[in-house]
Parts: sequence; structure tokens; C-alpha cells
Amino acid sequence: MNHQRSSPKRPMPSLRAASAFICVLCVLFATARPVTADEGMWMPQQIPALTSKLKSMGFAGDPSAFADLTGDPMGAIVSLGGGSASFVSPAGLIVTNHHCVQGALQYNSTPDRNLMEQGFLAKTRAEELWNGPGSRVFVTVSVREVTADILGKLDPGLSDRARFDAVEKRVKELTAAGEQGGLRCTIASFFEGMKWFEFGQMEIQDVRLVYAPPAGIGNFGGEVDNWQWPRHTGDFAFYRAYVSPAGKAVGYAKENVPYKPKHWLRVSPKGANPGDLVFVAGYPGRTARLTPYSEVKQTVEWGLPRTVERNTDQIAILEKLSQEDKETAIRVSTRLRGLNNSLTKSKGVLNGMIQGGLLAARKAQEQSLLAWIDANPKHKADYGDVLPALNALITDRARTRERDSLLAEICGGKGSVMGAAQTVYRFSIERPKSDADRDPAFQQRNWSRIREAQDRLQRSLDVKADRVLMKYSLAAVAKLPASQRIDILDKEIGLSTEMSEADADKAIDAFLRKLLTGTQFYQKDVRLACLDRSTADLLAMNDTAIELTAALYPLAEEVREKSKERSGAGYRLGPRFAGALLAQSGGLVAPDANGTLRVTFGQVLGVAPRDGLWFLPQTTLQGVVEKATSTSPFKMPEAQLSAIKALRAGKMTPYLDPVLNDVPVNFLSTVDTTGGNSGSATLNSKGELVGLLFDGMFGTVASDYLFDPVRTRSIHVDARYLLWTMAEVDGATNLLDEIEGRR
Amino acid sequence: MNHQRSSPKRPMPSLRAASAFICVLCVLFATARPVTADEGMWMPQQIPALTSKLKSMGFAGDPSAFADLTGDPMGAIVSLGGGSASFVSPAGLIVTNHHCVQGALQYNSTPDRNLMEQGFLAKTRAEELWNGPGSRVFVTVSVREVTADILGKLDPGLSDRARFDAVEKRVKELTAAGEQGGLRCTIASFFEGMKWFEFGQMEIQDVRLVYAPPAGIGNFGGEVDNWQWPRHTGDFAFYRAYVSPAGKAVGYAKENVPYKPKHWLRVSPKGANPGDLVFVAGYPGRTARLTPYSEVKQTVEWGLPRTVERNTDQIAILEKLSQEDKETAIRVSTRLRGLNNSLTKSKGVLNGMIQGGLLAARKAQEQSLLAWIDANPKHKADYGDVLPALNALITDRARTRERDSLLAEICGGKGSVMGAAQTVYRFSIERPKSDADRDPAFQQRNWSRIREAQDRLQRSLDVKADRVLMKYSLAAVAKLPASQRIDILDKEIGLSTEMSEADADKAIDAFLRKLLTGTQFYQKDVRLACLDRSTADLLAMNDTAIELTAALYPLAEEVREKSKERSGAGYRLGPRFAGALLAQSGGLVAPDANGTLRVTFGQVLGVAPRDGLWFLPQTTLQGVVEKATSTSPFKMPEAQLSAIKALRAGKMTPYLDPVLNDVPVNFLSTVDTTGGNSGSATLNSKGELVGLLFDGMFGTVASDYLFDPVRTRSIHVDARYLLWTMAEVDGATNLLDEIEGRR
Repeated sequence: MNHQRSSPKRPMPSLRAASAFICVLCVLFATARPVTADEGMWMPQQIPALTSKLKSMGFAGDPSAFADLTGDPMGAIVSLGGGSASFVSPAGLIVTNHHCVQGALQYNSTPDRNLMEQGFLAKTRAEELWNGPGSRVFVTVSVREVTADILGKLDPGLSDRARFDAVEKRVKELTAAGEQGGLRCTIASFFEGMKWFEFGQMEIQDVRLVYAPPAGIGNFGGEVDNWQWPRHTGDFAFYRAYVSPAGKAVGYAKENVPYKPKHWLRVSPKGANPGDLVFVAGYPGRTARLTPYSEVKQTVEWGLPRTVERNTDQIAILEKLSQEDKETAIRVSTRLRGLNNSLTKSKGVLNGMIQGGLLAARKAQEQSLLAWIDANPKHKADYGDVLPALNALITDRARTRERDSLLAEICGGKGSVMGAAQTVYRFSIERPKSDADRDPAFQQRNWSRIREAQDRLQRSLDVKADRVLMKYSLAAVAKLPASQRIDILDKEIGLSTEMSEADADKAIDAFLRKLLTGTQFYQKDVRLACLDRSTADLLAMNDTAIELTAALYPLAEEVREKSKERSGAGYRLGPRFAGALLAQSGGLVAPDANGTLRVTFGQVLGVAPRDGLWFLPQTTLQGVVEKATSTSPFKMPEAQLSAIKALRAGKMTPYLDPVLNDVPVNFLSTVDTTGGNSGSATLNSKGELVGLLFDGMFGTVASDYLFDPVRTRSIHVDARYLLWTMAEVDGATNLLDEIEGRR
Repeated sequence: MNHQRSSPKRPMPSLRAASAFICVLCVLFATARPVTADEGMWMPQQIPALTSKLKSMGFAGDPSAFADLTGDPMGAIVSLGGGSASFVSPAGLIVTNHHCVQGALQYNSTPDRNLMEQGFLAKTRAEELWNGPGSRVFVTVSVREVTADILGKLDPGLSDRARFDAVEKRVKELTAAGEQGGLRCTIASFFEGMKWFEFGQMEIQDVRLVYAPPAGIGNFGGEVDNWQWPRHTGDFAFYRAYVSPAGKAVGYAKENVPYKPKHWLRVSPKGANPGDLVFVAGYPGRTARLTPYSEVKQTVEWGLPRTVERNTDQIAILEKLSQEDKETAIRVSTRLRGLNNSLTKSKGVLNGMIQGGLLAARKAQEQSLLAWIDANPKHKADYGDVLPALNALITDRARTRERDSLLAEICGGKGSVMGAAQTVYRFSIERPKSDADRDPAFQQRNWSRIREAQDRLQRSLDVKADRVLMKYSLAAVAKLPASQRIDILDKEIGLSTEMSEADADKAIDAFLRKLLTGTQFYQKDVRLACLDRSTADLLAMNDTAIELTAALYPLAEEVREKSKERSGAGYRLGPRFAGALLAQSGGLVAPDANGTLRVTFGQVLGVAPRDGLWFLPQTTLQGVVEKATSTSPFKMPEAQLSAIKALRAGKMTPYLDPVLNDVPVNFLSTVDTTGGNSGSATLNSKGELVGLLFDGMFGTVASDYLFDPVRTRSIHVDARYLLWTMAEVDGATNLLDEIEGRR
């Protein structure tokens, strides 16, 4: 499960995200592949061009409805900034995945009242709980192409570093202009910088928790079943969007009132059934189907194995800690779930790329492109130098990848005290600049987010977790090869290449003792106050975390500078690479996912994952009973067991499937999704919500790199399982009435 | 896989097997269950009564053919004494499972030439390898009911102990009379001693290894896939039966000639296909569907968990040893495979009985019988005391079960030096008696087997294995509760209840050092010579193994006496319990498996093992490729990879399935089988061999205790996989020609 956690926290790619190297290389790559089966995370405006395909799949509606972001159903589709969701009532009720509301559950949990375990239901609006700072709902209201504004008349003679600045400047100007009307504006690049689009979004800032089933339903199967089929997870939960009484998107305030969306989805009590055409509208995070082979190869041979190794270790470290301390357990729970999810997905991708042969297939694809270029003198002249130049950039980056990864882990570790110090310190350097000159992450438009993040951090910050995880990172620093040493850390800790492991261990322990007792950044008030302090004032605090951050700052800047230069080169080479691919290929192709709104469609359909095996397209309550044990993650709530017994004893429910003679739980479809799609509405041909997308399949998660049109499936929770659980298990009749229009 | 290993080594139950307590309690138990689906390991003579059911399943042949043991196809069905097989050529060629020929492969292996790994193919008859002493082929030629001879005019006033002797005496007399014509005769009890039958078998003693594919085919998937689906195991191998030039069943001799069976099976190049009606004829070992609930409960709560624990430990012990020593590895390989198989099956049975709810269902069944008895004064008078009396016997036996199990492990451990000493010592005590007075296991008819077993033992006997396994057993002896101490061992080893584990450990080590260096029984010649010595001569050898055996003999005799008394009680109570069940039920019911020839039939059919999952009924070469890795047990031979490549490149083969467009490998059917059925011919309606039964499914192995008519499946290898492998992979063209009648 848990698409969302492998996606970026940003609601959509800012310029920095767009300029990240991996994305810069995202290009249109269709080569010898026809537009097959159900591949395609389409931009909404591409859907009308797919009319004939949709008609062939039995769609009787108007495809142009999907291109109208302010109409029905697209007006109901929202982003949570790292997950997808949709309005399901005129009073701003939002449905998404259970695993997308973990942060809100964690924020409102205490050791005595663990909402992540027991779930939550507000029986009245007054009982709805604020999600905490930083929780957002984004409603995309406009998309327009701005390629000419970004790339028009760009001097071809610019150095790569200067080109980066030129593009960044234009993006900032356009963003500033776009935000004057009060919307959040984002400029994103597509097809490797060949095309650029501007997105306008309403940003709702007061979001409240309404209902989440207990973990025994919402996370039934847990990590054991994560990414697996057959699946029986009730991965759904509800938020409500609040605005000021005047209808403005403002921060949390008691007097705020539910937001009234122009459009909301009808939840179908008929769910989704085998053979049905279904649409998924949401915010997929990142795919790399169109990157050069060498980039994928590096990911498979270095990046993913590294992730598997480090995640495995980090999980073991945090689980041990969690067993020892209940409060720490709550603080690290979301991080643990994220690490587990990333671990399983990484294993799945590796499995698909290597055993599944997708890496070899990717290589063959690129060889066909190279052959196409080589076969024609004009192609050779136009594109012959592009791939070698891109490959050289990838090789260059690899030279310091171990060092750079560890530096990022130490300075910017999510949820760590050093991450907080780095934000505060960099903010003190960027703040005095003019807004146009600031690093995009620290521009004024992001200041309230920065503050909220430091506030919200209090729920996950934990000195014990910092100690063990930093120790783990520094142990790797101690082992860096001579060519990639981090001199500052060697000096500060007293490390050297010829040191024994035991000695390094001792030195790191001593260093961490000093570092973690010498900082005030575990205190929320200190962090927030420091966001107003100058660099000099921060340094005068004699805070150990700030001192280390300052000492590492020059190296971090050097790494950022190098990355900007490579990105500038990417802006130069990327569009030409895309040009080669476009010229070789043809037909309508969906761009790689980049966190922007997409629509994908397909069919409810089982699959043969392996020889001799068939995954049926639906699961039922029967399977919940089969899997249930007395312990997590297969511990079904008593109330659910009673409800199932009542059902078996003949209690009537409108959510019973007449074919299955049971309540459907999850279903498979051929739609094309990835991390970030979690919580996406699954719609039928009438635009009704028939389910929620919540996961991909272990065997085909490598589709992020090359789509397997035969075996790729996404996993959804059936709307009937939501409705039945609300009606029969959790007594959420108030919400049922609201959803079904009875109040 | 590996039905055979959980079945007894005997070809069919001797009186001793039949009188074993668990079997004495086997009764007809049909209660509220109708004769459903495909349950039923039918006695061949029952098949004609099933004509209407067979016709409803589309059978157009003559059901009475199955009752004619000397006709076609039953004349071709043979037992290997612990596994099933069938003749497939007029020159005595026999097909069975790869896992049934492990002993022969082991016997002919050396550290430099491991046939278990590399397989074996005799390109000419001269190259065929003798399986070694003790390998047998049994051809059942007659069955007749002898209930009146065994039970007629048995004095109801006899004590239980005397009743046991009376029945044993009649069985011995009948056996002796039956064997005068040269056949092997066995008397077996059915329906809890309510019925008795006499079986006449020809016993072929010179059996030779003809062909076994390499482990990469024959044991593809190994323990990982054992009992699992989807399955891709080429579990087949070939023997040939030899007789004297005059046609007599004699021991191995170079001048022996292939046996000419009157009937042999045609191997169908069409295999088995979904929906086909299939028959399996073979020798299922043991089921307990008709035993009292308390017996099953004890098995589930004590016996199986004990097996799981001890097998797990013993496997770990032997695997460690195998890694250290290549020669030991070969010696313990068959034992290891057996332990692994037993472990997995025990886990599967436990899973089905507990999670699958079969134990509760068994309890409910018995409660319905009790209610039926209670509801009617006549039933109450006739049967009211039976179950309480049977339960008392079970409770009585449980009192010393830990001690008795460990005593059996130490004295009679299969393949151990102590097992050899016990055989030799008991033989010296039984031999001087008149044949009629001897324990059945030591009657003259078994002398050549006893000798052969001591000869064959040399291939598996290993002092290192004995040391670690005996140490493991004795550590448990040291921990026996005060009420079950084995005084002799306490004294010999110097153990006591209040001893620390470390002290016990030291004492056991010292004891084993003395025991294992002080015996000559690791030498084959000594063992064979000792079979002719008197008890006094044996004792005069001052052999430590004999001394320990002699010291333990009185206790072992006491245990045997107690068991005989309980069996005698079983002869008294069993038929009455069966009577109750018969009276409550009705209709034709198959008796529990007891190692005698049975026929079961069903359909080639997939199954939904769990919610959301469907097991397709067939697997193909595609799945072999999907599973293949570079290491055992998924290492496919190079020659197979080449053959698959050639097939994919368009090479024609008559064994390609036109629907699957691939060569089928394994298939599922609804037939009812258990351990001992391994190697059984799977026949189509024309009596042609379409596959070989080789395994059950993990999820439904608990069918040994209660048949699940919905989900139970057996696993077969498709005849086309045999033929394709012979033709395209292993070059066994000589055998193909023989099978297909070309020579």
C-alpha cells in the first residue's frame, strides 16, 4: 500500500523539484512501444484526444469533462500535498486513504489514546480534530502552457550554470505574477523540459480529521500484505476542509466553517465490478519511464540496493527503540511505516527490473533509439551527441554519490533535529535577500509552511531516534572512501580512514552525546523563535546543532552549486533528447508523473501474476475472516466480527454484491498509477466514486520504470466496503447521511 | 510433495500394523456427511457399486475393470513398499516418482558421483543399476474377505490381552496357509476390525534403476515448493523389475531377465486436461477420518506440535552436519528429505485442523454421533459405553507418551546403530521360538528382509549423525518428568531430575563417547553375522550397543505388552464403534487408508485456496523459466534451458498443449490421496497413463483427518512433461521407444 509515502511531500513540483536532475532527464520515450493496454497517467487536457480509445472501451460520456478542472467530476478532485483525495459532500467532506491520514492521527494521539490504533470518529462537526499545522488541501483550478515564457529567446551561448539561473528567474517571475490573484501557483516541466505548464491551486489550510477506522480495518494486513494481493485493507478515511466564515482559505481558527466545494462526487453503492471501465484522478508523484538507460541502471545497481540495505537497518533500529518506549513509538510510527513501505517497494522494483527483465528491456529500448540515430546522417547530426553528454552528467554525479547521500541524510534528515537546524540556518541566510533572489524553497510564499513544519515537527522529533539514526549515518561516514571524505565531520568527530570500527564507534558516541545535549532545537518555541533570528544571532547561541550545520554549510552549498550546473546542462540537453524520442516515435504519449494532476483509466480485471496462478479481481469479507488472527496486523475489530456474523445470519445490507454473495473489500484494475496516487478517487463512467486507489502490486511496481501492459495492476478499496463499514461496524451514520445527501 | 515418506515402509499393513492402536480405532464414520464430491480411497471391489456416479461424471468404460486385479489396467499397478508405481512396457519397465527412487539413487551414489543431484540414465539394459538390497515391487493379484476366519467364534469372555493373542494366532495361520503357493500374503483390517481382508502379492526382489532426471527437474522447487501450488516438479523416474530366467521372483543376480507383466499402461501423449475425469490407482498409507475425536485431538494438541518441534531441530542438526562433511551429506540426504517432508506436512495438517477449523468440525461430528446414541434407548444400550471406553484407552496411553516416544526413538531409531542392535537382539530372542510363536515381524517369511535391511543400512548409517541425534534424544530423556523417567538410562548415563542442563549435557557426551566407540555395529559384516548369533553370544561380545539394548529390553517389552492389551481392547470395542457409525450413517463409504490397494477418481480442476485467489489447474514450462535461478532448488539444468529455447524458437513437439501453447508440467485434480500414493498412475477414462500423482496441497493435507470436499486437491505431473523431458532434455530415446512400443 501506501503510494503516498514514496512521493514527495510537496503538493506538486516546485521549480526545485522540476529541476532536480532525475526529472530534468524525463523525456518523451515511446520508441518501439505502441500506446498499449492501459498505460498512461494522462494530463487532463489530453483526455479528449483519447476519445476513440475510450469509446472502444465502452465509455458513453463526454471525454472533455475530464479536461474541465472546474467542472464535474474534476472539480471534486484534490491533492493533500503528497496524497490524493476528493470531495464527497457539499459541506467539504473529503475521502482519502487511511494511510494518507497517519500524520493527523499521529498529531492527535497520546500514549493513552493512540488514534493510529483505535481509529477516530467525530459524531458531530464540533468533535472534528484539527490535523495540525501543515496539513493542506489543494484544489487545482487552472492549467496553462507556459513553455514560451520559460524557454523563449534563451541565449544558447549561456553557460550551464547561467542557464539554470535564467530559467529559475523566469519561473520565479511567472510564479509571482500567477499568485497575485490569491492562488498557489506552480510551474512544472514536462517531457524533459520540452514543455512547461503553470498550475493554479486553491490552498485550503484548515483541514480536520473526521473519521478513520481502527488499524484493524484501515491497515489490516499491515506490512505483511503491503503491495500484495489478495488484499483486504479498508484503506479509507475522511477529512473536512474548513475556510473562514467569509469563505477564504485561512489558517486554523475555531470559528472557521466547512468549505463548500462547487463539485463533489456521488459515492456509488454499486462499487466497481469485473469488466467495469474505471477512471482514477489524482496526483501521481514520480515515474522514470522516459529517462536514459544509464540513469535507470544506476538506480537499479546502486540506488535501490542502497535503499534496501539502509531502510532494513533503520527499521530494525527504530523498531527496537519502539519496543522500549511507548512515547517514542508514537513519534516514530509514521516514519517507520514510510520506511517499511519504501523498503518493500524498492524490493519490488528491483525484483521487476532484474528477475522480471525490465532493466534489460530498457537497455534494448535505448539501443533501438541509438540505432535509429546512427542509421540516418541527419539524426546523427541532430542527436548524436545528446545521450553521451547526458551519460557524462550521470557519471559525474556518481563520483560523489556516497558522500552526497550521507551529507543529505545528516543535514536534512526528515524529522531530525539536524534537519530543523538546517532549515533555520538556511532561512537566516536567505531571508535578508530580495524575494526574487531567494532560493525558491525559502521565498516568502513558503514562509508560513516553513513555520508550520517546525511546529508540526514536535510530534515526530525524538532525541532517542535521532541518536540511533545519526549514529547509523555517521558509522557510514566513517567508512567513506578517501576520495569522498567529509573533512568537517572527520575533524569534528575525530574520524580517519585507518581507524578501527570500534574506535570510530566510540568517537561517534562521544560526538553525539555532545551534539544532542548541546542543542535547544528539541524545543518547539526555540525553533519557531529562531526562524526570526539572523545568522549571527544563531551562531551566537552556541547551539551544537547550529554549529555543525554552519560548519557543513560550505560543502552543502558546493553540492547544490554542482547540482544547479548539471540541471542547467539538463535544460540544454533534455529537450533535444526528447526531440529524438519524439521523432523516433509518434502518437499521443503521457508524460512521466511529476506530482501534477493526472487521469488514468482502465478496467476492473484479474491477472495471472505467475504461471499457474490467477488473481481474482475482487476480494470479500470472507477473506478478512480467513486472514484474521488475534494479533496485529491481522486483528480484526470485535465490532467487525459481529457485523460479519450478523451479515452471515441474514442481516440485509445494500452493499452486498449479488454475484459474490458477500461485501466486496478490494479490487484490481489495469489503471496506471504510482506513489502520490494514494487516496485517488476511482470513478465509473458516470463520474461516481466507486472506490479509492490505494496501492500497486509488488510484482509490477517496476512499472515506474517500464510499464508492463500485461501484468500491471493497481489495488483499490471498493466503495461498498467503505459504506458497509460505516453503516455496520463503526456506526458512522452521520457521515453516511451526509454522503448520501440525507443531511 | 513426497507422499511416500509419511507412509510406512511396509508394502501393506502386517498384522502388527493393523493392530497398532491408531488403526484399531479406524472405523466407518460417515455421520452427517453425505458421500460428497470426490472423497473416497475406494477398495477396487467397491468401484462397480459406484457405476452411477462414474457415469454421471462422463465415464463410458466398464467400472468392473477396476475390480479385476489381474486384468487391464489394474494388473499394471504395483507397490514399491511405501510408494506406488505401474508397469509401462511389456519388458517390466516401471514408472514412479523421482522422490520414490531416492533410496536407489543414494545407494548408487558416491561423493564424486552424486546421482541424487545429477540424475541417471541407462542407455542400455546392461547399464541399469541394482537398487540395492530391500528394494521391492509388489504386484497385488488377489483380495478376499476373511472376516469370518479372523473373528468367527471368538470367545467374548477372553481378556483383552488374550484376545490380542487369539487374533494374532488366526492371522498367522491364515498368512502361512496363504503363502504356500509362493505369494506374499497379508491380512489387513478395515473399518476398525469390523472387516478383514487377505491380499496376495507377487514380490519381485531384483529391482533396478533405469532413469531419473537430475534434481533440477525431479526435485525442482525442493522444500520451498513442497506441498505448494503453482508447482513445476518433474517428479518422475523409472525402474525395471527383474526375475530369474525361469520367471521366478528371486534376489538380485546378474543373469536375471526383465519381468514380463501381463498388463502395462499405455502412456498417453495427450496428458490430462481441465475437466478430464481421472483415476488414481495406488497404495495410500494411512488416514484417520474415522477415528474418535479424542484421538485426533491428541494428535493435534500433542503429536503434531511435537513432530514439528523435533523435526525442525533434527533438520537443523543434520543440515549443519551435512555442510561439514560431503560423505555424511549423502548418507543423511534421504532422511533429511523425509524429515523436511514430514515437517511441512505436519504444519499443513495443524494449519488445516486449527485455522481451517477441521478439529472443531471433527468434534461436532462426534457430538452428533453421541446425540444420536443418546436419543434412543436401544442405541444407548448398544453403544453408550463404547466411546467412553475407547477414550479411556487413549487417556491411558497418553500417561507415558513422552517416555514411550523417546524410548522408541532411542531403541528403534531408523537408520541408527541402536536400531540395528535392537533388530539383532530381538531376532536372537525370537529366532529360537517356533515360527507360529514368533513376533510377526520376526517370522521366517521376513528373514530375508531383515538381512537385506541390515545390508542396505550401510548406505545411511553414520556415526556422526547418530551422535548428534542421540544426543538430542537423550537431552529430552534428561528432562522427562519424574513420573516417566527411564531408570536404566538415568543409571547408565548418570542423569537425575534435579541435574542442571550443563551437567546433563556433559554426562550425555561422556555416555555417547563410550557407546559409539564401543560398538562394532557400524560394520556391515558384523551386523549380518550377528543375525545368526544367540542372545548369549551377543551378550558375550561386550558390545556397548547390545548391552544398552539388553538393558532397555525389559522396559521395551513392557511397553509392547501394554500396547497389545490395548489392541485387544480395540478388537473388542472397535467393531461396536463402527457399528454405531454405520447405523447412524448409510451409503457406500470408503474405509480409511491402510496401505492396501485403492482407487480414487475425480476431475482435473483448479481451486480457490483463499479469497481472491485462484489456482489454475495446470502449470507449464513458462513457470519453470519464471522460477529458475542459479541455485538449488530452482536451478534448471542447462539442457532444459536449451530445450525450452528451441521450443520457443519453433521446434515441433507432439507434447505441446494447443490451448496453453506450451508443454504442461503439473496439474491439479480433485482425487483423494495421501502419503503412500506417491508415484501412483493417474489414468484417463481409457485406462491410459496421463500423469503421476506426487503430492497434496499444504492447505488441504488435513484431509487425512476430515475431507474438505471443496478445496482438497492432489498434484500430478503431466505425462507430457515426462515424455518431453525424455525426448528433448535427457535424451532418453531408448525408453521413449520402449514406452511407445517401437521396441
